[in-house]
Amino acid sequence: MTLVGALGLCAGLLTSGAAVPQVYKTYRTRHARDISMWQLVMLSLGMLLWLIYGTFIGDLPLILANTFSIGCYISLIAMKLRYDRKDRGR
Amino acid sequence: MTLVGALGLCAGLLTSGAAVPQVYKTYRTRHARDISMWQLVMLSLGMLLWLIYGTFIGDLPLILANTFSIGCYISLIAMKLRYDRKDRGR
Repeated sequence: MTLVGALGLCAGLLTSGAAVPQVYKTYRTRHARDISMWQLVMLSLGMLLWLIYGTFIGDLPLILANTFSIGCYISLIAMKLRYDRKDRGR
Repeated sequence: MTLVGALGLCAGLLTSGAAVPQVYKTYRTRHARDISMWQLVMLSLGMLLWLIYGTFIGDLPLILANTFSIGCYISLIAMKLRYDRKDRGR
């Protein structure tokens, strides 16, 4: 693998993996008050478009990374809907 | 522009622009308790690598989108450091 290829791979792993500590923190604390719902929705939609784009150009890393991220962001949206209702109820 | 090119452009605009509502919400509410610092740091580092990658392959959209996003995420890190200290002080 070339240096530039390795750079792209590391970049992709970091930006895709970044959702994991957020999912973990939200699940553990059961609070998502300070997270913007618009950010989660825009990321999910954008990554769905990246996924379709990756399918069109037949790029497997793009397909796998975005499928994983969409799963993370949809679970964050579900947790935010649930925990925000609980926080407002207090 | 081809359909696939337009798809990639929309995907890039959505994922890069997603930081904007989060920056706005954090600035407005002055709270960042529920945001994972690891997520912000991983996104900043990953996007820095995308920026270097984009410079290597000479891709201007990749350079511009990631410069913009890095600015957003660094401002979020700065706000989180500041507001979390204030929240702990209460």
